[in-house]
Amino acid sequence: MAKKDRKAPRPKAETPKGFRDYFGAEVSERKAMLDTIAQVYHRYGFDPLESSAVETVEALGKFLPDVDRPNEGVFAWQEEGGDWLALRYDLTAPLARVYAQHRNDLPTPYRRYAMGPVWRNEKPGPGRFRQFYQCDADTVGAPSVAADAEICAMLADTLEAVGIERGDYVVRVNNRKVLNGVLEVAGLLDPADPAAQAAERGIVLRAIDKLDRLGPDGVRALLGEGRKDESGDFTKGAGLAPEQADTVMGFMQATRASAAETLATLRALTASSVTGTEGVDELAQIADLLAAQGYGPDRIVIDPSVVRGLGYYTGPVYEAELTFEIMGEDGKPRQFGSVAGGGRYDDLVKRFTGQAVPATGVSIGVDRLLAALAATGKTGARAPGPVVVTVMDRDRMADYQKIATELRAAGIRAEVYLGNPKNFGNQMKYADRRGSPLAIIQGADEAARDVVQIKDLVLGAQIAENASLEEWKANPAQSEVPRADLVATVQRMLAGS
Amino acid sequence: MAKKDRKAPRPKAETPKGFRDYFGAEVSERKAMLDTIAQVYHRYGFDPLESSAVETVEALGKFLPDVDRPNEGVFAWQEEGGDWLALRYDLTAPLARVYAQHRNDLPTPYRRYAMGPVWRNEKPGPGRFRQFYQCDADTVGAPSVAADAEICAMLADTLEAVGIERGDYVVRVNNRKVLNGVLEVAGLLDPADPAAQAAERGIVLRAIDKLDRLGPDGVRALLGEGRKDESGDFTKGAGLAPEQADTVMGFMQATRASAAETLATLRALTASSVTGTEGVDELAQIADLLAAQGYGPDRIVIDPSVVRGLGYYTGPVYEAELTFEIMGEDGKPRQFGSVAGGGRYDDLVKRFTGQAVPATGVSIGVDRLLAALAATGKTGARAPGPVVVTVMDRDRMADYQKIATELRAAGIRAEVYLGNPKNFGNQMKYADRRGSPLAIIQGADEAARDVVQIKDLVLGAQIAENASLEEWKANPAQSEVPRADLVATVQRMLAGS
Repeated sequence: MAKKDRKAPRPKAETPKGFRDYFGAEVSERKAMLDTIAQVYHRYGFDPLESSAVETVEALGKFLPDVDRPNEGVFAWQEEGGDWLALRYDLTAPLARVYAQHRNDLPTPYRRYAMGPVWRNEKPGPGRFRQFYQCDADTVGAPSVAADAEICAMLADTLEAVGIERGDYVVRVNNRKVLNGVLEVAGLLDPADPAAQAAERGIVLRAIDKLDRLGPDGVRALLGEGRKDESGDFTKGAGLAPEQADTVMGFMQATRASAAETLATLRALTASSVTGTEGVDELAQIADLLAAQGYGPDRIVIDPSVVRGLGYYTGPVYEAELTFEIMGEDGKPRQFGSVAGGGRYDDLVKRFTGQAVPATGVSIGVDRLLAALAATGKTGARAPGPVVVTVMDRDRMADYQKIATELRAAGIRAEVYLGNPKNFGNQMKYADRRGSPLAIIQGADEAARDVVQIKDLVLGAQIAENASLEEWKANPAQSEVPRADLVATVQRMLAGS
Repeated sequence: MAKKDRKAPRPKAETPKGFRDYFGAEVSERKAMLDTIAQVYHRYGFDPLESSAVETVEALGKFLPDVDRPNEGVFAWQEEGGDWLALRYDLTAPLARVYAQHRNDLPTPYRRYAMGPVWRNEKPGPGRFRQFYQCDADTVGAPSVAADAEICAMLADTLEAVGIERGDYVVRVNNRKVLNGVLEVAGLLDPADPAAQAAERGIVLRAIDKLDRLGPDGVRALLGEGRKDESGDFTKGAGLAPEQADTVMGFMQATRASAAETLATLRALTASSVTGTEGVDELAQIADLLAAQGYGPDRIVIDPSVVRGLGYYTGPVYEAELTFEIMGEDGKPRQFGSVAGGGRYDDLVKRFTGQAVPATGVSIGVDRLLAALAATGKTGARAPGPVVVTVMDRDRMADYQKIATELRAAGIRAEVYLGNPKNFGNQMKYADRRGSPLAIIQGADEAARDVVQIKDLVLGAQIAENASLEEWKANPAQSEVPRADLVATVQRMLAGS
C-alpha cells in the first residue's frame, strides 16, 4: 500500500470547491458592465485604484490573529518570516489601509473607485462562490453628508447606465443615528453606557431587517415575547414592553407619501434624543440635496427600515433594490432585491492612524446585477463568432491564412480552422459551435477558377429547419464570388445579417 | 510584559513585502493596454476566459506536495478539509486544468485569451513584485504549426496596436526540436536515452541563452572548460570537446540574411537527426505561412539563439523583443529586451487526461510593455482631472451640486469640493492636485447677479509663472458668464484647451 501511494496519481482537473471559471460571453458581459460603471464613476470625479489582492491579516483587521491559524472567513497563510497574509475579503478594508499608508500623496477628499475579485473562506452553496466581483466607490475625507448624497445620486445613475430602467429600482436611504435615537427613546440604548443592552438591540435590529419577509405582525412578535413560525418553531423575542415596541414599530413604519412627511414623523419620534435629531437633520439635508439635483422619490427615498448588516456604519446608510419581480426558486414571483449597498464609516482609517477620518461609499454586487439583467433578458444574447475559413487542401494553408489576414485587416473577426481538416463535416460543426455567421470555402476547383464559396451559416440553419426540398436544392445560403471580391462581400453580408 | 503584549497595537498601514498598489493613471493605462490587446485577440477569433485565481496545488502541478508545506514558489495554504490550495503563478497551468475539465463543452481547437494578476512567492527585489499582470493567448487542440505561425503574427499585430512601431520590435522564432537535433549531432542527447547527460545539456542551454550578454567567445568558453568573468569569478563549463562546441556554436550563429539561408544552414547542421530535420521543416512551414501573410523579416525572424527557459516546450518557441535602446541603470544605453514569449507545449493537458493534447500560446508581460511605452514617452501624460465646483457658501451646497449635475449630464467630468470649504486656498490647492482644467466659483454676489466665475487653471498656472504685473492684474484666466451659459462655456473652454 505504502509503495502504491507513492506513485503520483493523475491530478484531478477541477476548480477548488466553491470556485468557478467564466467563459466567453460571461467574461465579456461582466467587463462591459464594469466599463460602464467605471465611466459613471469617472464622470463623478472618482479615480481608479487597484490595491494588492494580498494584505497582511493585521491590516484587514476584522480577522486579527488571536488563534494559531487566523483564517476564519478569509484565506490566510503564514509567510516564512512570520507575517500572516490573506486574500482581501472586500474592497473597503484595503481602502482604509491604502488611505492610511498614502494619505500624504492623495488629495483630500479622496474619491476612488475599485473593481475586482474578493475572496471569502465560507462554505460554498448553490450560486454562492468563494471568489466574486465587487465594484466600489468611496469618498474619504469628506465629513459632509453632501458626500453621501452624491454617492446615492451616482448609484442611481449607475443602475440606469447599465440598463436598469427608472422605476425598476429604488435607492433607499436611512441613517444609523436615527436608528440609535429611536433605540434611546425606547430605552434600549443609554448614551452614557453604549455597551449595555447590546444583545437586546441585536434582536431588535434583526427583527427590523425582517420586515419585508415577516410583515409588521411578525416583527412585532419578535420585539415582544417571540414568534412561532409556520413550522411551529419558536424564536425568542427581545422582550420589549408594549410601549417600547410601539416606538420601534413607529420608526419602521414611518415612511409617508413624501420625504418631508417621513422626516417629520421621524423627528417627532426621536425628539428627545440628541443623536436621533442629528440623524434626522442629516437625512433632511440629503433629501434636499437630491431634490435640488432632480433625484425625486421615483429614484431615491428615505426609508427607515434600511438597517444594513455591517457594524462599522456610523451615519447614513443606503441600499439599491430592484423592484421588478422574477420567478423565485419556489415557483412564486418575488422581488429581485438588493444589488448594492453602503454607508458612512468614520472609524475605519482611525484603526491605523489614531485620527478619525470620515468616509462613505457604496459596493455594487456586480454578479447579482448581471443576474438581474439576465433575468430581464437584457443580456445573454449570443455574440457572433468569427468568420471561419475552412481548410479544403492542407497544402494551401498559406492561402487560407491570407484570406483570414485580409478579413481581419478590414476589421472582421476571422480565423482559419486549425483542427484536423480531413473531415469537412467537423469543420462545419466547429463553425456552428463557435456561432460563426459565415464560412469561407475554397477547394482546388475554386482556387483554379480564382473564386471562393461563402456559406451563410445563419440562413443555412434556418433552411435546414424549414426548407422544402426545392429550396434546399437551390441552396441560397451558399454563394460563389470572385476571390478579389471576398472581403467586400463578407462585409456586406455581415452588415445585412 | 505579557499583559502589555495582549493590548492590540495599532496595525501597520503597509502592503505586504513585494506587493504594491496602483493609482489613477497607472490603472487606466494598463486597462487601456489590456483592452487594446483583447481587441486584437478577439479579431483573431480568441475567446475570453477568466479562470479562478485559486487552484488546487495538485492541479498547478509544478509544485506537487512532496513536503509538508508545498509553497515553494507559490502562495499556498491548506483547506480545513485537507486539500492544499494556491494562487495561480501563471495563466498556462490553469488553462491546462480548464481544458481538461471542460473539454467536452469547448470547441476544438479552443482559442482563448486570459488576462489578470498572477502571484509568485519569490524574494521581492527592486521593480520585482510578487503580484503582476499576464496577458496570454493560447490555442489548444491544434497540432499544426499554422497555429504557432498565427500566434506569432498576432503578437506582431498586438505590439503595433499598443504603440510599438514597426522596426522597434522583432518576433524571434526557434524550435526546440532543432535544438534537440543539434544536441543529438553534438553527442549530447541520445534519443534512445533522453534522460542521460541532462546536466551537460542544462549548462549548454544556459550558455546559449547568454549569447547576447557574453558574446560568442564567452559562450564558447562556457561550452568548454569554463569562463572567468571580469571580477575574476570562474564559472565551470560544460566540458565539450572542440568539435562538439563547434556544432553548438554553428547552430547559435546560423542566422543568415534570409530565412531560407538560415533554414538551409540549420538543415545541414541537423541532417543526421530525425528530430532536428522535423524541427527545420516546421520552421520552414512557419516562415512560409508568415511570408504569405506579409509578415517579413522586418517583423518576424527565424533565430536559433532563442531558447526560452520553461522545460515544458516541445516544438516552436517564440519571443518578442523591443530593439530600441533605453538608458540602463548603469547609465549605459541597452536594448529594452523581451516583452513576450511562448511556444508549443503538447504535454500539459496530458497530465490530467492521459491523452496528448497539442497546445501553443504566448504570454505578454504587460507591466514590462507599459514600462517600455513609458520609456519612449508614449504614456504617462497626465489625464485631465475633473472640473471642480468650489464651495463659497456652505448653505448653498445644493446649488453647487446642481452645477456639477448639469456638467455631468453634458458628459463633462465634474465634482463639487467636499472638503472643509472654509479656506478657499485649500480648494484651489485641491483642484491643482487633481489636475483640474477649470474651477467654477459662485459666491453670494455672483448668485445675486445670476452669474458664475470660471477659472482656467491651466492658463492660470502659466500666468503665475510668466506674467508681468499688468498681465497678472488683467487676470485673463478668470471670466464671468451668465449662469445659464455655464455648461456651453465650459464645453467650449475644454475643447479649446
